[in-house]
Amino acid sequence: MTAPRLAVIAGDGLLPELVLRAAGPDTVLVRLEGGAEGAAVSREDDLGAAHRVIARVEQLGALFDALRGHDVRQVVMAGAMQRPHVDPALLDATTAKIMPDLMAAMAGGDDALLRMVIGIFERQGFAVRGVHEIVADLTLPNGRLCGPAPSEGDRRDAARGRSILSALGPADVGQGAVVAGGLCLGLETAQGTDAMLEFVAGTRGQVARASGGVFVKRAKPGQDLRVDMPAIGPLTVEAAVRAGLHGICIQTGAVLVLDRAKVLSRADEAGVAIWAEP
Amino acid sequence: MTAPRLAVIAGDGLLPELVLRAAGPDTVLVRLEGGAEGAAVSREDDLGAAHRVIARVEQLGALFDALRGHDVRQVVMAGAMQRPHVDPALLDATTAKIMPDLMAAMAGGDDALLRMVIGIFERQGFAVRGVHEIVADLTLPNGRLCGPAPSEGDRRDAARGRSILSALGPADVGQGAVVAGGLCLGLETAQGTDAMLEFVAGTRGQVARASGGVFVKRAKPGQDLRVDMPAIGPLTVEAAVRAGLHGICIQTGAVLVLDRAKVLSRADEAGVAIWAEP
Repeated sequence: MTAPRLAVIAGDGLLPELVLRAAGPDTVLVRLEGGAEGAAVSREDDLGAAHRVIARVEQLGALFDALRGHDVRQVVMAGAMQRPHVDPALLDATTAKIMPDLMAAMAGGDDALLRMVIGIFERQGFAVRGVHEIVADLTLPNGRLCGPAPSEGDRRDAARGRSILSALGPADVGQGAVVAGGLCLGLETAQGTDAMLEFVAGTRGQVARASGGVFVKRAKPGQDLRVDMPAIGPLTVEAAVRAGLHGICIQTGAVLVLDRAKVLSRADEAGVAIWAEP
Repeated sequence: MTAPRLAVIAGDGLLPELVLRAAGPDTVLVRLEGGAEGAAVSREDDLGAAHRVIARVEQLGALFDALRGHDVRQVVMAGAMQRPHVDPALLDATTAKIMPDLMAAMAGGDDALLRMVIGIFERQGFAVRGVHEIVADLTLPNGRLCGPAPSEGDRRDAARGRSILSALGPADVGQGAVVAGGLCLGLETAQGTDAMLEFVAGTRGQVARASGGVFVKRAKPGQDLRVDMPAIGPLTVEAAVRAGLHGICIQTGAVLVLDRAKVLSRADEAGVAIWAEP
């Protein structure tokens, strides 16, 4: 008996390929046309998937039919996705019915929107999986991955970052914070991690007594890890180095470490500690 | 019978002068030497005060003696103050005793530090007042001060900003947030309001569907308004304009509007709404 067929709804970055490689050649690749700028998806890159479905966010009915045609029973969303532009002229009946709720959810935070997307697939009879359930070793166990041992001050900064993110959790804003010498120098907003770390790099000189510091990245409290899992990668390490930080503290089992080999070598080279805490 | 004599502990900006003008010529002006960069305070500018005390943060015992010598019964801290550098060689006995607690508080957020400073003055027998208790009309009543009427979307953005700041309150981080189209684009950190608004101006183009937006400025929940009251001024309006915002929503009775004439004219000219909500 083979496993129920999986469809990968592919966003940007390295994750879709990692998932396809782990899930095997029997997997269905779904590409969404439209997207943030309304641009058409490149149809060339099938990432080795045997089956491919091109879908539009306005025509979810057609997507569900195509998935059922391929006997898909479970889906995984892999890679970063922008909030899509929606062309009302293209709506099919299935999508038109859920669009008012979807538009309302889009006005809120990421979580509200993504919870709704999960619910839409589930109500259509598809199981929704998380990338970390399919690809082994994407997240970290407790403890240090690389770099020097964090100092007591680094650990205090990490603890303060955790408590700030925990307080911010119910507001559904961001997954990252920078704390240096007890002072919060950055909180992740809709512009994302890189923009925040660049902000810290450019402005930390204005704050006396804030040397070193730690970037803390965690899932939001209660966040559904099946979509929009927090992630770090080689660019995160580069940005942390430019921001003058001592370390990156991520949540055990809940934050993806992408392109781990490059992350390790760059962090070791720059002397940036990366460790995981529950 | 005259009112108990007041001392103004003067920081940066326009507030010390406003307080002195409102409190009358019998007031004592206190200038702190040292400060963030260890620079000496200019001794020239007495702002019309009849009495002046030059103090060092390391020698609070001398400051308390000098205040008692002037028969001061109440103090007000006016204007922005940087976290001071402390030269251990200069500590007097009074200050040495409280320094360990003070250093611990300095490692935390602003609130913890400022609550401690209030406590220090109170334990020495001085009443601590807030600038808004001394200068009339520094804060706003409910409603619109200037600019166009905020749209329904602006009001929704303001409400989301309020709820984000309310969630963040216990973490003692910042007093400001920018929300546009429901998305949080900026959260104030130790670098302050201007740095955050500049960040929003420089990065908001990365976020689709986030047009307009509102800067929300409030006291932290439970914040003692006798120190570090949140404030906006003409530069805030300029920065909000550069960040492409529609409005500034401040907390009724709890946020100082400095240089109100300039704030009004600049906001009306730029079409930025300024209003207060409880």
